[in-house]
Amino acid sequence: MRTHYCGDINETLIDQTVTFCGWVHRRRDHGGVIFLDIRDREGLVQVVFDPDTVDAFNIADSVRSEFVVQITGRVRGRPEGTTNANMKTGLIEVLGKEITILNKAATPPFPLDGYSDVGEEIRLKYRFMDMRRPEMQDKLRFRSKVTSHARRYLEEQGFLDIETPILTRATPEGARDYLVPSRTHEGSFFALPQSPQLFKQLLMVAGFDRYYQIAKCFRDEDLRADRQPEFTQIDVEASFINEDDIMGIAQGMIKEIFQKELNVDLGDFPRMPYSEAMNRYGSDKPDMRIPMEIVDVAEFLQDIEFKVFAAPAKDPKGRVAALKVPGGAELSRKQIDEYTKYVGIYGAKGLAWIKVNEIEKGVEGLQSPIIKFIGDDNTMKIMTKLDAKNGDIVFFGADKAKIVNEALGALRCKVAADLNMYTSEWAALWVVDFPMFEENDDGSVTALHHPFTAPSCSPEELEKDPLNALSRAYDMVLNGCELGGGSIRIHDQGMQQGVFRALGISEEEQREKFGFLLDALKFGAPPHGGLAFGLDRLIMLMTGSTSIREVIAFPKTQSAACVMTQAPGAVSNVQLRDLHIKLREKPKAAE
Amino acid sequence: MRTHYCGDINETLIDQTVTFCGWVHRRRDHGGVIFLDIRDREGLVQVVFDPDTVDAFNIADSVRSEFVVQITGRVRGRPEGTTNANMKTGLIEVLGKEITILNKAATPPFPLDGYSDVGEEIRLKYRFMDMRRPEMQDKLRFRSKVTSHARRYLEEQGFLDIETPILTRATPEGARDYLVPSRTHEGSFFALPQSPQLFKQLLMVAGFDRYYQIAKCFRDEDLRADRQPEFTQIDVEASFINEDDIMGIAQGMIKEIFQKELNVDLGDFPRMPYSEAMNRYGSDKPDMRIPMEIVDVAEFLQDIEFKVFAAPAKDPKGRVAALKVPGGAELSRKQIDEYTKYVGIYGAKGLAWIKVNEIEKGVEGLQSPIIKFIGDDNTMKIMTKLDAKNGDIVFFGADKAKIVNEALGALRCKVAADLNMYTSEWAALWVVDFPMFEENDDGSVTALHHPFTAPSCSPEELEKDPLNALSRAYDMVLNGCELGGGSIRIHDQGMQQGVFRALGISEEEQREKFGFLLDALKFGAPPHGGLAFGLDRLIMLMTGSTSIREVIAFPKTQSAACVMTQAPGAVSNVQLRDLHIKLREKPKAAE
Repeated sequence: MRTHYCGDINETLIDQTVTFCGWVHRRRDHGGVIFLDIRDREGLVQVVFDPDTVDAFNIADSVRSEFVVQITGRVRGRPEGTTNANMKTGLIEVLGKEITILNKAATPPFPLDGYSDVGEEIRLKYRFMDMRRPEMQDKLRFRSKVTSHARRYLEEQGFLDIETPILTRATPEGARDYLVPSRTHEGSFFALPQSPQLFKQLLMVAGFDRYYQIAKCFRDEDLRADRQPEFTQIDVEASFINEDDIMGIAQGMIKEIFQKELNVDLGDFPRMPYSEAMNRYGSDKPDMRIPMEIVDVAEFLQDIEFKVFAAPAKDPKGRVAALKVPGGAELSRKQIDEYTKYVGIYGAKGLAWIKVNEIEKGVEGLQSPIIKFIGDDNTMKIMTKLDAKNGDIVFFGADKAKIVNEALGALRCKVAADLNMYTSEWAALWVVDFPMFEENDDGSVTALHHPFTAPSCSPEELEKDPLNALSRAYDMVLNGCELGGGSIRIHDQGMQQGVFRALGISEEEQREKFGFLLDALKFGAPPHGGLAFGLDRLIMLMTGSTSIREVIAFPKTQSAACVMTQAPGAVSNVQLRDLHIKLREKPKAAE
Repeated sequence: MRTHYCGDINETLIDQTVTFCGWVHRRRDHGGVIFLDIRDREGLVQVVFDPDTVDAFNIADSVRSEFVVQITGRVRGRPEGTTNANMKTGLIEVLGKEITILNKAATPPFPLDGYSDVGEEIRLKYRFMDMRRPEMQDKLRFRSKVTSHARRYLEEQGFLDIETPILTRATPEGARDYLVPSRTHEGSFFALPQSPQLFKQLLMVAGFDRYYQIAKCFRDEDLRADRQPEFTQIDVEASFINEDDIMGIAQGMIKEIFQKELNVDLGDFPRMPYSEAMNRYGSDKPDMRIPMEIVDVAEFLQDIEFKVFAAPAKDPKGRVAALKVPGGAELSRKQIDEYTKYVGIYGAKGLAWIKVNEIEKGVEGLQSPIIKFIGDDNTMKIMTKLDAKNGDIVFFGADKAKIVNEALGALRCKVAADLNMYTSEWAALWVVDFPMFEENDDGSVTALHHPFTAPSCSPEELEKDPLNALSRAYDMVLNGCELGGGSIRIHDQGMQQGVFRALGISEEEQREKFGFLLDALKFGAPPHGGLAFGLDRLIMLMTGSTSIREVIAFPKTQSAACVMTQAPGAVSNVQLRDLHIKLREKPKAAE
């Protein structure tokens, strides 16, 4: 139906006759002729109809925005002064000879350019219109290209694309499962996978050696953050490898994608132990574009009377730390109040600060409500340790270490964004040496990654002191976002049972939930490990989008619904009966 | 952890030291030395341990089948007379210097070679062992390569890989949906997609022009045939194309896959109208490897007294037809009885036959219980029309056309398989010109493909005589299997509503179920079409497997369960309460 895409018609085709199809992007009447900008996925081309070609002129005159047309015409150079260097096709136009209306279009629910004030709800309801916008076209095409690069890279490295089931058994990843009632097994349910974790490990036990999959995963979580009920992972697993091998492969993949699609060299990814990341950046996914660090100052504050600082300074689980913000002395009282509110989200009870006006004057050159509690001497020692300069502001956190880290870690990112302090566009690193377990408030322990992660200690050490055991896990972090993560897995049945024990999972529960995994480990499981990347987030970062919804063709809203198809929807009683379930009656009004 | 895969160690490495990992495939004691065959995904290598290397020898002596080991040794040529030309590594062996046991293995639940009498249930329960067998390794690797070829081919043709949702709205494909209760929308349910049909059409409306996806699809059907609850489609859609364009692209893809992976040239695919396929082969997916056709013989039998033939011969909806089987006169009475039973499955009430012994003797040279009913003259006219030769058998079908077609169509395939009558290994074709609708017994009509398929007639003709309307659908058939199918879709809102009307779908139901599609057609939908291939079936055919379960890593059983993970399983009441559902109480025993 066409000889060329609109966007591909250029000056090499001058004097040739071309046929193309697309949407009427703009229609103008000018000096007795009609100009149509016709759009397809490759771009726009300008078509001119003059009244000499009566039939075509009349049709062109009748078209409206978003009509679908097929046009034949002759390519010619644009008259001098009317060329457009910003347009791929800006040196030419097409003199229209024939035009066929392939389909009409009602007035669009929102304009496709200059749409910025259109609400997301209406964009999602008419997603098929929203995606006509060049930004959305570009983002989804970009996504397609990135997955293609990832696949090729992994296939060249010998990874096999193997599909794992979507209808499966409830998994222990922690989040809530989506359930699917079984018709043939009354009272039983499938779960949609939170990840293909156990299946990919079984594929290693089966000897496939290198597996990958671009896999749909599902979590029925509250979508407060930028999350989707279904999301996509680049999922990778390999056998007979160690951390260096698999991290090298993964890093190679991400570097290649950045090189090919953004022409960016991410360089070598440094590695940082978890403990260092927490200490220096208050985060296990530090944004290394930001030239600020969190510095311990407890040493100066243990013996002061001011309990707010002294108590956590003396508490082994406490932390007192400072964040020096270069140039931050200009922050207004109002801004500081806002930051105080901001760190409150993370549990911080306040946000002490010292502005450095004229450091050469000693404490006299500082401005702060807290110096009187800290003491002049201690204050100056802190300023020296921080190497404070005129114009800086120093923020303080003093609380349980967890709260201080989260509060100052988040503050560091927030201030950097507000003051645009980034020293580079991209900064990637690996975070390694994670703890195996986290202690909950009730004293129970949870796996920091998942219970199949191998510890870097012996089974005996694990048993003796689980909370100090480190794991062989690794996270890839880019610009303060976790792009992907994984670990060397446990391949020894005894070690796996040891981890289950540490997590308080009884033998019976182990058997019931993980019997097939324990079986698999018994019959000759190879050493193996892998990782998974969040594809949606990767594409979001690479395209500079503010939400993963911008890089998913048909996303769900925050309440996990599709406003376009009206999913989820009602179903018939027959369907429910077939599935052996019924709706729960609403509780009666309180009696 | 290794320098080479086992299967890659060959005579070019003689005298070099190599390290490899894998499973102990076989262990033999022979003349005081120990032979281990070590297996990884690339193949087997033979390792020899002699008692001089004491430590290694002792470890090698202790290993058992399926232990996981790492071995370092020197490659050497095998002694004359012990080489094995059938093995990639058959010219060499490795003199083992070091061996580490990476993991032990309990005795496998079934032997990994010579397993033929192992039941499928036990193979599926220990799928991670079953997949260690070279056949399964080969099949899944083959599958990975085929999907890779398909992707590359489509991407080179400008198709973008775009993901569509798994959590979606109930679709109208006809089969039963898998449902997913929503937690955030009480009483509402998502459905898992039976295909991405509507989403891919919306992507065309959105202007992506060319879309593909290797997509998981779901149908909650009874798995009597070789079906799976979840299966995989190569799903394709394009805009501004006609049948020839999209069929050319699809055919090119399949031809390339066969050429690259099997070194088979499938040639040009002929096209055959649906009506011809039904008449000549009794099937809309004729197996063209079989040199037999179904031939109408009603013309000779309309006026005879024998009602069994005469009635359908005169009925416009009836059919009387013959299938001549060359060499079939050798079939025993018992075999014929079995075929009679076989066609009974398709509703045939009997299977009349005539054996051709000595055709030169006229009816005297024939053997049949039915000649006396047909009459000598009619019999010989039929023999002449069929060009019957000595040694043939002729089977007859006489009933409603649908029954005759199905019965003789199936018999044709069955006899061809039994007598190995195939004239080629592969035979592909397109079946085209399908009817838009089928009439049900109650007089209502159903879409033969789906209600989004474009008719090849005008809206007015469709309205006037829907049952005679043909569609712009096309099926690709290979060796009697439907590999894929698709159609040019309706892009005109009025036409779409006309088809919905013909199907008896009220305006209100149209709006409720397909409102978003009708909206999309209203806002400038381009002409478009596409198709989908059944990936599982394609791989099954290409690998000569007898079931799609053989080409899926973790398939479900016939009762839609996973015997390995024990899915589906029980869930807690808390989970059900969160989803606003409960289990239906079992009905009390009859009162």
